[in-house]
Amino acid sequence: MAEERIWTAALVVIGDEILSGRTQDKNVAQVAQWLNVQGIRLAEVRVVPDRTEAIVEAVNALRARNDYLFTTGGIGPTHDDITVDAIAAALGVGVVHHPDALAVLERYYTTRGGLTEARARMARVPEGATLIENRLSGAPGIRLGNLFIMAGVPHITAGMLDALTGQLEGGRPVVSKTIGSWAAESEVADLLRETERAHEGVAIGSYPFFREGRVGANFVVRSPDEALVDACAADLTARLEAVGRATVAGGI
Amino acid sequence: MAEERIWTAALVVIGDEILSGRTQDKNVAQVAQWLNVQGIRLAEVRVVPDRTEAIVEAVNALRARNDYLFTTGGIGPTHDDITVDAIAAALGVGVVHHPDALAVLERYYTTRGGLTEARARMARVPEGATLIENRLSGAPGIRLGNLFIMAGVPHITAGMLDALTGQLEGGRPVVSKTIGSWAAESEVADLLRETERAHEGVAIGSYPFFREGRVGANFVVRSPDEALVDACAADLTARLEAVGRATVAGGI
Repeated sequence: MAEERIWTAALVVIGDEILSGRTQDKNVAQVAQWLNVQGIRLAEVRVVPDRTEAIVEAVNALRARNDYLFTTGGIGPTHDDITVDAIAAALGVGVVHHPDALAVLERYYTTRGGLTEARARMARVPEGATLIENRLSGAPGIRLGNLFIMAGVPHITAGMLDALTGQLEGGRPVVSKTIGSWAAESEVADLLRETERAHEGVAIGSYPFFREGRVGANFVVRSPDEALVDACAADLTARLEAVGRATVAGGI
Repeated sequence: MAEERIWTAALVVIGDEILSGRTQDKNVAQVAQWLNVQGIRLAEVRVVPDRTEAIVEAVNALRARNDYLFTTGGIGPTHDDITVDAIAAALGVGVVHHPDALAVLERYYTTRGGLTEARARMARVPEGATLIENRLSGAPGIRLGNLFIMAGVPHITAGMLDALTGQLEGGRPVVSKTIGSWAAESEVADLLRETERAHEGVAIGSYPFFREGRVGANFVVRSPDEALVDACAADLTARLEAVGRATVAGGI
């Protein structure tokens, strides 16, 4: 069998509000989950401040080595929204008002006070870009080749991801099965290592927790090959039961 | 006045579970908030998978250009916990069992089944390291110069941050004031830009929201200089009220 191609994406989260701790990021998890379904692996995330050089550096480093690059944040109408200009600088292209984006905003603001200059800022895109639909708040996302520039507000980002569903080439999605056990992970560490070794192409993650006054762990078995996942999960369950550890299929 | 030194830190979040979307990260926000209080600015975050090369690259890039580097995740007893080895490789030092960590774990596991080899893995540190106390679950964090290696489980990370409080040199903490307004940020974009321009050394962030069927925004005024923050916040409030926008001190 030829080696399976793995498609990867990176995400740059842009925003002082994340780095100051004011805002809890929600986009890493939702972009990751959406990418999984498209058969694309999120390989790396960077969170950078609203500063041109920081955005340029992250965008150029990550687009060079991933199939896709996503950004979230910094595409609103205010002075701290510098993502479009920074990305245009990273790509060495100009910034233009996209006519379709202007039309969309014009329509959206007809009943909301009209399209002011500040609002028209949200139609600015790096030259050559197309738009990603935003049914929720007018201002569209931006696509330029394999670069996807999205909103920072999570439910708007979600809408943009919806609009992109099925549009991106990917591989087989990673399948996972979770097995929970009321065992300290340190008690079954060797067993986990040996099980993973016995199943090539499968990764086992171990995620301990402390709940209801007891320690336990969830073991997540992952691979793009569902048959391998099933076999490894069954083997892991058997090995845990063999050492007297009850398991809970699906996790605890 | 001499220019004020700004102390910076970076954070590397290590873990496949974050990049797969399985786990919602909580450490970025809590490390950021803790750093603020220490007068240290979180300048950049990277999220990397449980893979040696990815950890080495991120650690070496970020420790070179920040005063402090923190990592979270990957210091447990299982096969997917490779942070200590990867960081030792990044620094070009060996890995040793720290005698104090062994003693701590020995004590902790006395009533919990004894110190097995897997558990003793949690005493492994890059050569030259000291320990960060972990009152909650035995296995300590690790300090090596300006590098801080911490747990991934958020409440354990929190305990380690507690143990480090007041230990790190920083500058003046950034002070912030939030002003909320039931205004679309696009309506006051020019006003915000002009207000920020009129107050050197102060940054204004604009964070829109949609709530109770209405749009609004919170404006966050930030600077290490409290007097500048107060003056800018008062000015911004006055300018918003002057254009008929009611404001809510402290944010909405």
